[in-house]
Amino acid sequence: MITVTLIGGGNVAWQLAHVFSNSEGIELVQMYNKTLENIEYFADITTITDDIKTLKKADIYIIAVSDKAIENVAKNLAVNGLIVHTSGTTEMEVLNSHQRIGVFYPLQTFTKNHWVDFSEIPICIEVNNETDLNLLKKIASIISRNVFEYNSLERKKIHLAAVFVNNFVNHLYYLGYHFLNENAINPKILFPLIKETALKLQEENPYDNQTGPAKRKDIRTFEAHLELLEDSKMKEIYNLLSNSIAETYGEKL
Amino acid sequence: MITVTLIGGGNVAWQLAHVFSNSEGIELVQMYNKTLENIEYFADITTITDDIKTLKKADIYIIAVSDKAIENVAKNLAVNGLIVHTSGTTEMEVLNSHQRIGVFYPLQTFTKNHWVDFSEIPICIEVNNETDLNLLKKIASIISRNVFEYNSLERKKIHLAAVFVNNFVNHLYYLGYHFLNENAINPKILFPLIKETALKLQEENPYDNQTGPAKRKDIRTFEAHLELLEDSKMKEIYNLLSNSIAETYGEKL
Repeated sequence: MITVTLIGGGNVAWQLAHVFSNSEGIELVQMYNKTLENIEYFADITTITDDIKTLKKADIYIIAVSDKAIENVAKNLAVNGLIVHTSGTTEMEVLNSHQRIGVFYPLQTFTKNHWVDFSEIPICIEVNNETDLNLLKKIASIISRNVFEYNSLERKKIHLAAVFVNNFVNHLYYLGYHFLNENAINPKILFPLIKETALKLQEENPYDNQTGPAKRKDIRTFEAHLELLEDSKMKEIYNLLSNSIAETYGEKL
Repeated sequence: MITVTLIGGGNVAWQLAHVFSNSEGIELVQMYNKTLENIEYFADITTITDDIKTLKKADIYIIAVSDKAIENVAKNLAVNGLIVHTSGTTEMEVLNSHQRIGVFYPLQTFTKNHWVDFSEIPICIEVNNETDLNLLKKIASIISRNVFEYNSLERKKIHLAAVFVNNFVNHLYYLGYHFLNENAINPKILFPLIKETALKLQEENPYDNQTGPAKRKDIRTFEAHLELLEDSKMKEIYNLLSNSIAETYGEKL
């Protein structure tokens, strides 16, 4: 049995609390947050506290707080055990006030309003010694089939790629939905296309999947689209991404 | 029984030939393409021809060729029956050399290498009289649960939104994959995140789903990411989309 304490009350902490408390072989010993209210939801399944100085003993302490708060929270921890954070962009070394440190980064987008299935979620781990590697691998493997070891620089690169395929992609969804809403067309019509575009990647690669006017070098459609767009930011995005697609396939628009 | 003739040998023609020949209530009478080779695959299930002047009689002739070829192909058709094209960006009026005209636009991304399930695919139809509306609705409803009536301007707007959520989104997938490949990291690690980002839209809207450094106004991560990017086009895209996200949530980066 691996005992874990979770530190934080945000989306990542919530999702981890949920999956840990439903996993055999893991015991969620305690949750800490500076505002108790944010973790009251879990009061029935574990001990909750807002006093960081008197945490119970656990094998692993997982700090799931905002990037800029990690270092300070770590400094306030007066515990033994492995201390890890969950951030994609933050180096393991911000935990250097402790001896046994590591990273436990689940590559997924989390919100509180729906529980995700962890079994497919890639978990990127990093530690500085063999014993802790085994411990972290063990807990990660209980909740996910996809556990990877990456160092801090590699993890930053993965996080950067994730910004492109998640944050930026979602913003393009928003722009498409917003444009149709403004034109009194129900944007839900786009959903089957969005789903197919994403799921196609399971079998194929995005280079081969590309279609559309920019790839075809279809100047007539390109110009007609720019004319339909009234928002200057959307025009700019249309232009830049079309040109980037055209260049990728050795053409210029 | 509705009889149909398909004109064209590209991705859309292939997918329609496949779904029509597997649908009760529809008979695929004939397929035409100027190069027979491209439609030989269907020789066992229908008559194929490269002679546009001697087409058999059918209720509906569907022109599924490239946008710029539609008008000319239509002029060469010496048939009675309803004549429709499948283009998102092309007006119905390019078919004006005929009397009974319309549009049958399936909103999906097609390739030849895997058959899609049409039952969820939105089909946007347009015609100029009530009788043909019923005919087109009937055939569309046999293959899909999502049939919509939109005029040519509305259809162009839907196509433009589709460019954002499909063409541009797929290009961001490509950029993310390419970046990881260049850094010797297997890009498949991104797939579960991509899938969740897309499927979340079934329940939630993209405005609420947005996360990431640009939304949080996290300048430190923003600058660290720009430093990690070597490609000037990717930097430009990172900048523009981050600013657009920040502005959407009332902030400036």
